[in-house]
Amino acid sequence: MHKQYMNLAIEEAKKGIGNTYTNPLVGAVIVKDNRVIAKGAHLKYGCEHAERNAINHCQSPEELFDSTLYVTLEPCNHFGKQPPCSHLIVEKGIKRVIIGQLDPNPLVKGQGKAFLEDHGIQVIVGVNEEEVYHLNEYYNFLHRNKRPYIVLKQALTLDGRIAMNRNSPASITGQAVWDRVHKERGKYQGILVGSQTILSDNPTLLSLGSSLYPPVRIVLDRQGRILKARELNLFKNKLAPLWIFTESEEVIPDLPHVTVIRKETLTLNGVLTELAERSIHSLYVEGGGRIHDAFFAENLWDEIVTYISPKIIGGNSLPGFSSHREATGITPLHSVAFEQLGTDFRISGRRTDTLCLQD
Amino acid sequence: MHKQYMNLAIEEAKKGIGNTYTNPLVGAVIVKDNRVIAKGAHLKYGCEHAERNAINHCQSPEELFDSTLYVTLEPCNHFGKQPPCSHLIVEKGIKRVIIGQLDPNPLVKGQGKAFLEDHGIQVIVGVNEEEVYHLNEYYNFLHRNKRPYIVLKQALTLDGRIAMNRNSPASITGQAVWDRVHKERGKYQGILVGSQTILSDNPTLLSLGSSLYPPVRIVLDRQGRILKARELNLFKNKLAPLWIFTESEEVIPDLPHVTVIRKETLTLNGVLTELAERSIHSLYVEGGGRIHDAFFAENLWDEIVTYISPKIIGGNSLPGFSSHREATGITPLHSVAFEQLGTDFRISGRRTDTLCLQD
Repeated sequence: MHKQYMNLAIEEAKKGIGNTYTNPLVGAVIVKDNRVIAKGAHLKYGCEHAERNAINHCQSPEELFDSTLYVTLEPCNHFGKQPPCSHLIVEKGIKRVIIGQLDPNPLVKGQGKAFLEDHGIQVIVGVNEEEVYHLNEYYNFLHRNKRPYIVLKQALTLDGRIAMNRNSPASITGQAVWDRVHKERGKYQGILVGSQTILSDNPTLLSLGSSLYPPVRIVLDRQGRILKARELNLFKNKLAPLWIFTESEEVIPDLPHVTVIRKETLTLNGVLTELAERSIHSLYVEGGGRIHDAFFAENLWDEIVTYISPKIIGGNSLPGFSSHREATGITPLHSVAFEQLGTDFRISGRRTDTLCLQD
Repeated sequence: MHKQYMNLAIEEAKKGIGNTYTNPLVGAVIVKDNRVIAKGAHLKYGCEHAERNAINHCQSPEELFDSTLYVTLEPCNHFGKQPPCSHLIVEKGIKRVIIGQLDPNPLVKGQGKAFLEDHGIQVIVGVNEEEVYHLNEYYNFLHRNKRPYIVLKQALTLDGRIAMNRNSPASITGQAVWDRVHKERGKYQGILVGSQTILSDNPTLLSLGSSLYPPVRIVLDRQGRILKARELNLFKNKLAPLWIFTESEEVIPDLPHVTVIRKETLTLNGVLTELAERSIHSLYVEGGGRIHDAFFAENLWDEIVTYISPKIIGGNSLPGFSSHREATGITPLHSVAFEQLGTDFRISGRRTDTLCLQD
């Protein structure tokens, strides 16, 4: 019975897809006498939480007395954009709270549950845990690993090249891949590229989709090379935020969508810590080959997505995952998935097979 | 009616698969009063041709008088290992000869047909031409293009690498690819590799299959590096011929399966001309990356077969199709085919879409 009501709460949570960032998706269902009396979701960042929404959807306050609340994520216990849900639950006389998973966010983690129990409410945790985890896979990942979930994405010829040379734009794959990549970007909260890719390809790095929070465009630009190139599409196009990590003292472009993050020494770990603090749950790293190899060499990756076009360049053309570093081993991918996209192919794989549900 | 009998002749021809080299596959059917009275194939190099076999299968010489002979390839008109079939056909009083395709071999080409017509036999050419062409695709290719049909085969990681470095053996793909490659080799008459691949991998380069004529193992060894390394599996294993092309004056290993072909200057065109003269109809080029790029750069290829294993090496590891040559363009493959093999993938494509049936 618990599983069935939790599934309803999960379906409810999905109503917020794309619009709750930086918050997780949450759904809630209130049950009394084996009957669902109200449902609610967190629909948009800054608006009511799922529990409050469900409570508001009840016909009268009396109904709530002695009821059971099913909620996909532990109710909050702190004052943020909204007052804490735990207080409201106690206030309304709800008897029992069934929680999908504890909130990994250190601001909440166990405190919501403790507050409810301290006020005599019966709490059960861990119903449909896997489905609930997947609902906010990257949010969970961020809080458990203190860095975003990292997807390295490349587009290659059949001889593993990303472009003819460093200065020629990479246009390897066809329309079906273009469509797919633009949709795929929308799944992540940051799109990261190196400055060379910006200078060679002059991309907009936008996504397709209806999210209120399009992924932040993040450029690693140690020397500040793109800061000088104001004619770039990234500056002209303001549809998504642009964050530039740099060591350079170059003057910042005075554009509302641009943030320059200065570091004395730019390291991947430093960048990822900063991104985690800025609530980037997941990162889609689009290269080029040197950026990919830097993430790979430091073991900072969780998934690799490769688009392959049946073409050959050969000669001294630019390979993917490339640097002067001595190669040290051959790393197999797990949970490999394959797809045909027009005349091209997509092969993806993860670093590990297992999805860790435990802290 | 012609098509139906020609199909029977094609089926008959296939009985010789793997055993007629350097000759083509040929099948013949003799028809009289709308009834098949005999069939025959060229079953083995050096043995009777298909026409003679079919004639021998008749119950009495009288049957042949006024009959029609269907034969997949133009009857020969020269004395080789066997006396000419054209003479025999005339002798036996056969009235009509239906030929699938003219023999592209300059020793025959049109002369068999002319001899028959000169002796009052009605000749029709070009029935089921496409199927008949496919029966001896590489034989036809060789005689029309004066070089073998060339397949470039590579095995790569998902970042397009063939090995960790020049000296480490390439062991990228799994068992299913191993099985497939060993079977695939048997489709071709030569397997070509560079000396570096031999020294790094020490392969046997054998094929799986029941052919009487396993593919010749061909090594391009400009400096004669492998000639000095008598402990290599290629020398120890004698199950297939080994031809070594070299510029070196190094002493030749005294082994019956080894032939050393000395050239003052080794060029791909020179090698291919020599191989054509030695009746190598088709070539499976297994690399390494420099050999592949040399064939590719000189436009000496017809098909590229890529095996991909979902693994990453990165760094400065060895890419496929690689040289110091400036890349000049991105070449798309045609008639692309995809297959999953265990945990690995196979993607193949041709240089052109069209199979030219005309001279």
